[in-house]
Amino acid sequence: MMTKLILATNNQNKLREIREMLKGLPFEVVSQSEAGFDLDVEETGKTFLANAAIKAEALRDAAGQRGISCYTLADDSGLCVEALGGAPGVYSHRYAGENATDAKRNTKLLAEMEGKENRRASFICAMVLMTPEHHSVSFEGEVCGEIGDAPRGENGFGYDPIFYIDGRSFAEFSAEEKNAVSHRKRALEQVVAELKKRMEERKKNENADE
Amino acid sequence: MMTKLILATNNQNKLREIREMLKGLPFEVVSQSEAGFDLDVEETGKTFLANAAIKAEALRDAAGQRGISCYTLADDSGLCVEALGGAPGVYSHRYAGENATDAKRNTKLLAEMEGKENRRASFICAMVLMTPEHHSVSFEGEVCGEIGDAPRGENGFGYDPIFYIDGRSFAEFSAEEKNAVSHRKRALEQVVAELKKRMEERKKNENADE
Repeated sequence: MMTKLILATNNQNKLREIREMLKGLPFEVVSQSEAGFDLDVEETGKTFLANAAIKAEALRDAAGQRGISCYTLADDSGLCVEALGGAPGVYSHRYAGENATDAKRNTKLLAEMEGKENRRASFICAMVLMTPEHHSVSFEGEVCGEIGDAPRGENGFGYDPIFYIDGRSFAEFSAEEKNAVSHRKRALEQVVAELKKRMEERKKNENADE
Repeated sequence: MMTKLILATNNQNKLREIREMLKGLPFEVVSQSEAGFDLDVEETGKTFLANAAIKAEALRDAAGQRGISCYTLADDSGLCVEALGGAPGVYSHRYAGENATDAKRNTKLLAEMEGKENRRASFICAMVLMTPEHHSVSFEGEVCGEIGDAPRGENGFGYDPIFYIDGRSFAEFSAEEKNAVSHRKRALEQVVAELKKRMEERKKNENADE
């Protein structure tokens, strides 16, 4: 029996990546718009976890109102710079104002980092999985690097051009290279492990019932 | 049958509070030193959740090595200031250097806030509960307030004197008043609800087995 897993996103890249990782498991993975939802919730949380939970819950409640039994999955992510006390963190998207460009945000962050010796930074991704039984399970993935002196590279988006790993910016990584080590991938691996565990437990229970 | 719940703390106030809230439930709540552990793990996480998980896991692993089946519970908390991109956040304790006094940290934060119109801030507490079956469940509690213009009050500790709610600093709250609304209490309430749910499920399973 296939179980519905609705993602709190319409991002086709995320959707493809998750489908790929869940291949062979009994899940029908759909985006929220594919499932017929058009949610736009305000991310008022002070942590990645809180924001991901807000989104996963809103989707679960909307599905519940239509009598749909499903898993829901949401994520939230951002860049945490040690010398800035973890900023921009959950404010990563709004760091230079609501509608600022990526370039503007990078310029602002580089200015804040001027003269700072500690350049350590991490991309963090929190994921919250809500089960049909209304349990909530959460995971975080992290990728460590440092803030460079200047933007470099053409790939990726957001803070990628100023986030360096071993002398190369994330925007110089190919999509495949980045996906292999990304914070999102590391969180997702834990979600997949959790789903596999739950499927095995379900199978065991079904066998016991026979 | 009593189940052991080991806290990743030796703080007597936390211990008493949790014991109080779990009254009537079949848990033997002990601090890590009471359980014979002397763990001092480095909190290298970039989020409250990660730090709480590091502590809960270390304790679970140490207990596992001695063949003790138990729940473990750890927390991590700090102050997130919106105008500072969520700082000092997980670095709250180290904000003015490793061994700085509370007064020094408050002075530094007030200086950073000079001229900032947006004074909104939140205390956040993350708690991670690990079950005997090696499941991990996490919760966050939050209390919203604002950064005042000057320290006030004699109670509490840390950033309490500059964290204001409705015109009074947290250090002007009595211990009882603070406990009733605190981020820790709000996280703890969710932990307690989770433990109650698990005890009910266990009871149901035991009855079904009879």
